[in-house]
Amino acid sequence: MDVLVTGGSGFIGKRVVAKLLERGTVTTHDNGPADIDTLIVVDVAPPADAFAGDPRVRCVQADFALPDTFAPLMTPKVGVVFHLGAAVSGECEQDFDLGLQVNLMGTLRLLEACRHGADQPRLVFASSVAAYGGELPDVISDDTPLTPQTSYGTQKCIGELLTKDYSRKGFLDGRCVRLPTVIVRPGRPNQAASSFASAVIREPLQGEQYTCPVPPDTAMYVLSPRRAVEALVHAAELPAAAWGTNRSVCLPGITVTVRELVDALRNVAGDAIADRIRFQPDRFIEQIVHGWPARFAPKRGLSMGFQADDSIREIIQAFIEDESQESSNGAQRI
Amino acid sequence: MDVLVTGGSGFIGKRVVAKLLERGTVTTHDNGPADIDTLIVVDVAPPADAFAGDPRVRCVQADFALPDTFAPLMTPKVGVVFHLGAAVSGECEQDFDLGLQVNLMGTLRLLEACRHGADQPRLVFASSVAAYGGELPDVISDDTPLTPQTSYGTQKCIGELLTKDYSRKGFLDGRCVRLPTVIVRPGRPNQAASSFASAVIREPLQGEQYTCPVPPDTAMYVLSPRRAVEALVHAAELPAAAWGTNRSVCLPGITVTVRELVDALRNVAGDAIADRIRFQPDRFIEQIVHGWPARFAPKRGLSMGFQADDSIREIIQAFIEDESQESSNGAQRI
Repeated sequence: MDVLVTGGSGFIGKRVVAKLLERGTVTTHDNGPADIDTLIVVDVAPPADAFAGDPRVRCVQADFALPDTFAPLMTPKVGVVFHLGAAVSGECEQDFDLGLQVNLMGTLRLLEACRHGADQPRLVFASSVAAYGGELPDVISDDTPLTPQTSYGTQKCIGELLTKDYSRKGFLDGRCVRLPTVIVRPGRPNQAASSFASAVIREPLQGEQYTCPVPPDTAMYVLSPRRAVEALVHAAELPAAAWGTNRSVCLPGITVTVRELVDALRNVAGDAIADRIRFQPDRFIEQIVHGWPARFAPKRGLSMGFQADDSIREIIQAFIEDESQESSNGAQRI
Repeated sequence: MDVLVTGGSGFIGKRVVAKLLERGTVTTHDNGPADIDTLIVVDVAPPADAFAGDPRVRCVQADFALPDTFAPLMTPKVGVVFHLGAAVSGECEQDFDLGLQVNLMGTLRLLEACRHGADQPRLVFASSVAAYGGELPDVISDDTPLTPQTSYGTQKCIGELLTKDYSRKGFLDGRCVRLPTVIVRPGRPNQAASSFASAVIREPLQGEQYTCPVPPDTAMYVLSPRRAVEALVHAAELPAAAWGTNRSVCLPGITVTVRELVDALRNVAGDAIADRIRFQPDRFIEQIVHGWPARFAPKRGLSMGFQADDSIREIIQAFIEDESQESSNGAQRI
């Protein structure tokens, strides 16, 4: 069986690719695990060094915004597709056409390629809690409507709707997972409004001072990269019956405030590191972050076997472990 | 000011065009009604005879499925767009590509044409209660999520999401109205799965036997063409503040069973006519219709001044009046 991963050079994508290569199999039928013959990694960015040399990997550096990216890659051998590639929230707000082409048209073209080129592949679509928005209840339940207030959220919501309709028609077997904010993201702070959620942990650990742009009582809904990768693979391996007619699930995460993040960092890494954090609210960031839902009751996700992290302390420790391992491997950070 | 109507040769479309020509104005600003200089009627079908001779009307017979239909028609003079054209539910289930091209891509192209060619026009998008589906509460409220179970419903839902995002970005001033099943539709039965709801009244009145494809206890949520046209024009004329950030509304309608329709027909037109109805369930139609919600609590729609019909009897009488008027005018039925 072949597996195709879009966005396979990204933060989550390269971890999904690494996990799949390490496992070597994916279970998609009752008769047990199937070997991964070729892992097709599609990304507009160059492939991550860590897996570029693996003979099972076929890297395709290509732009989703182009009409013919997916069609030539899809064959009846492709049994599982992980659709993780997307233009991110900040980009989509600043460049409307980019989001429309990459997130909306790119997803539609991928689905069409699955329909016409593959044989009812399982497709895991990485949606986001950014698909929620507007006037929300205090706690988001499985019944809370998606009323996105950003172009990115709108495009994720449309991707879910299309994935469901293609599944209903039998063109593919789709599974949409709404990811919480995934922390701790390595690298440098970026333009994303959520950048602080990773930076407040990462920057002090890397010896940097960090000025947090939101107040300590800001709450968010988070998941570690390890759990995110587990969830995406679990979504692919669950039997279709576990999804039923509802092909979406909101992943379990944990709700933490920035204060709790800082306290956990202090606990794990000590005062000297935690004292590198200052607060200086940025009204622009604050306004965006204020609209994000932070409290969830993800009953369906839990009942389907998806798992949140145990604690923010565990997330920080996993970040420290993963980073020291990456450094010792000499792998390139993305 | 110019007004553009898509689907202007259709059942609702030609009635909206007739109403706009009769009024001669649309109010879109605080300073009162603006004259309609040109009414651009776009439809893949030929224009209705009734208004083809009006000097204000410019008929464009063109296919939404083609990329260049809308762009040349959109100018800064276009102040209001009624987007009523669509491939209907039964067609979209049988021809997936048709729905994708006409309903999804056609709507996206119209929105893009508004964004690039017009000056923040008001856009009224005819959505549908078919956007609801799946596991629904007994009564649909304003907070019930859209979980469509047909391609048509999916495409209407996506149209709403796009209209809202284009509105949020200031590219246009969108208003999405979810229409109940509009009865009584004149002409012949069509491929809409809801076709029976009109046919069960119309066919016996026109001297035909009618075999109803759903059981008598099938409930549906209905609105007359008169009220539908009033609602669409009202949606265009409401100030933006009346919509706020939520650019969708579920229109008030009335809930009736097929049995109640037949009883009302018997009451209005007599036993001889009502006795022309037989029942023979059709599994394809039944499956589609079964998923449609029939009971609503449309608080928001009522608070915004949208009105349901008083009774099913009133709807039948209005149909008889409109039809006899059309016959005496010699107008072509569509």
